[in-house]
Amino acid sequence: MSNPSLLILPGDGIGPEVMAQVRRIITWYGDKRGLAFDVSEDLVGGAAYDKHGVPLADETMAKAQEADAVLLGAVGGPAYDDLDFSVKPERGLLRLRKEMDLFSNLRPAQCFDALADFSSLKKDIVAGLDIMIVRELTSGVYFGEPRGIFEEGNERVGINTQRYTESEIERAARSAFELAMRRGKKVCSMEKANVMESGILWREVATRVGKEYPEVELSHMYADNGAMQLVRAPKQFDVILTDNLFGDILSDCAAMLTGSLGMLPSASLGAPMANGRPKALYEPVHGSAPDITGQGKANPIACILSFAMALRYSFDQGSEADRLETAVEQVLADGVRTADLLGEEGVTPVSTSEMGDAILAAL
Amino acid sequence: MSNPSLLILPGDGIGPEVMAQVRRIITWYGDKRGLAFDVSEDLVGGAAYDKHGVPLADETMAKAQEADAVLLGAVGGPAYDDLDFSVKPERGLLRLRKEMDLFSNLRPAQCFDALADFSSLKKDIVAGLDIMIVRELTSGVYFGEPRGIFEEGNERVGINTQRYTESEIERAARSAFELAMRRGKKVCSMEKANVMESGILWREVATRVGKEYPEVELSHMYADNGAMQLVRAPKQFDVILTDNLFGDILSDCAAMLTGSLGMLPSASLGAPMANGRPKALYEPVHGSAPDITGQGKANPIACILSFAMALRYSFDQGSEADRLETAVEQVLADGVRTADLLGEEGVTPVSTSEMGDAILAAL
Ligand SMILES: CC(C)[C@H](C(=O)O)[C@@H](O)C(=O)O
Ligand SMILES: CC(C)[C@H](C(=O)O)[C@@H](O)C(=O)O
Repeated sequence: MSNPSLLILPGDGIGPEVMAQVRRIITWYGDKRGLAFDVSEDLVGGAAYDKHGVPLADETMAKAQEADAVLLGAVGGPAYDDLDFSVKPERGLLRLRKEMDLFSNLRPAQCFDALADFSSLKKDIVAGLDIMIVRELTSGVYFGEPRGIFEEGNERVGINTQRYTESEIERAARSAFELAMRRGKKVCSMEKANVMESGILWREVATRVGKEYPEVELSHMYADNGAMQLVRAPKQFDVILTDNLFGDILSDCAAMLTGSLGMLPSASLGAPMANGRPKALYEPVHGSAPDITGQGKANPIACILSFAMALRYSFDQGSEADRLETAVEQVLADGVRTADLLGEEGVTPVSTSEMGDAILAAL
Repeated sequence: MSNPSLLILPGDGIGPEVMAQVRRIITWYGDKRGLAFDVSEDLVGGAAYDKHGVPLADETMAKAQEADAVLLGAVGGPAYDDLDFSVKPERGLLRLRKEMDLFSNLRPAQCFDALADFSSLKKDIVAGLDIMIVRELTSGVYFGEPRGIFEEGNERVGINTQRYTESEIERAARSAFELAMRRGKKVCSMEKANVMESGILWREVATRVGKEYPEVELSHMYADNGAMQLVRAPKQFDVILTDNLFGDILSDCAAMLTGSLGMLPSASLGAPMANGRPKALYEPVHGSAPDITGQGKANPIACILSFAMALRYSFDQGSEADRLETAVEQVLADGVRTADLLGEEGVTPVSTSEMGDAILAAL
């Protein structure tokens, strides 16, 4: 049997810098743990636009469809700010999510003990935090039609459409409940059912799916209250289920709880392929960070932990994923810090590749 | 000349309890400062539904249109959870906002020195915080058509429409810039222009309006990043300008920064009436708090500070508003605390009316 295939799309800004460290880890798994991957690399975002005039070439899209997993760095940057909406770097990422039908975006927000002091929040509020946000990723206002800027009378109007079918809600909800079964057995579904009919349907379907999981405690919360509760008392949550737009905002809010966005991985999963593996794309939650690009300062941990999620969700290597996560925890406990994690007096930050060295040494 | 008119809509849950304290303060202003109001009272939300079968009767709507200012308590509660969407308590509030055309919702998030310890955030991140969120309140996905739950093939689909015209964005933006001129001269506009065309138009119009205010520094931020920055470093902001839905979530997120939702007032302003006063509705940001209703525990400060905003924005009584705000600060500095503000050892909470007593005494 051939090795599983990994398509790597480093993208823009710090994407290639953090991805370089992930490649070293991938090599280590091949050499030391007999987990070899067929790795290929391609362009996405501004990098793809520079070469092809589009943020994702059709050939790259086809490769992504065939890969056992896709690993993405980051897209975007000020050089592309004035591009037309249709070719913006972000459209490359959105095309991948949509055409691969990656409906379930898993965003863990975990507070590493060694970093509890870095959070904006008081330590007792975040210490030991371990929540999982499940964000629907292929529908809602991100993709609904009609959309655009239209003439109306003597002015223009900007329109987007929030749109959810029952089956779209159902499959996202099911993935949240499945995760909850392997975790704390609680799902909190967030919408604005008091204001939006799409939220009423969301709540109804989440409730119906919940009946298939009698062991899981389901609660509902308005998304505005959800944002507040995330800051007030985040440990009340286990799995949070929400839509594309609310998930975007709530997961960034949750991200800040853990101290640094440089720490947070994500997995975007679709339906199983012929080989039984889900279609999957893994990426750090952070962006391309133009302000620190090229300075060797970027924290590679979010991208490395995204690869750990790939080991767990695409390759059924849960214990190898644990190994990698433990190595990261070890390094943090040892006080190794990239610049985004500073705060303590007298600690000198390590570079992106030195963080890679430390994690490899801990493995 | 007759006295200015105030329509009071206590609403549901703790609404009537906190409003009772506001009425004492209104009386005090009439007796002691020669500021007399013609006060009338009516029903909204569940209370209106119980009597009229709708969450806002037409006669009440007409009274609100004519009042110099409306003061609202809170709407909603578990007794109304199973009502049809069209008669839910929230629809009463949304009808007021829409028909009075209250396009500019001002939500200050201010951290009182005496309460900095109550925030979930570390003290240095929030001490001295003073930001103002300007939320567009009459359009966007709250009101856009088409909306509803429809049959499609063999399933249902929930649809809402995000919709902004240039003039709707313009007037909200203008009110943010006007406020910024009297504050820190900074506006940060938040949308998702990387994903939504309505956000592109939003950014464009905000930029255009900004040109009329060369002294004000305008920046743009994606709303997801905005949520993160609010938790990371909220003091970077002065005025935040955003749409109806993002404003709902971001202001609740900001609310938590200040320690207690029981502290936060809001003003919803429309176009000037014949007498030059803007159409206006004032309400606390908190809800009806069914869990503590009827126990005399509610914090009346948010509602009292909403009346202070009425003094400032409807009645041109800025120094009387300052007087009331100073009285509130004084009482907090003296250590008077309702139950929501506890945390220190050995402090006994005061009741809703005792908090009213203390503020009256400090006036
Ligand atoms: C880059 C952008 C299109 C994207 C989104 O809005 O989904 C990002 O914010 C995210 O959360 O992955
Ligand atoms: C009660 C509800 C309709 C309302 C809203 O969503 O606007 C509330 O959350 C608010 O922020 O005023």
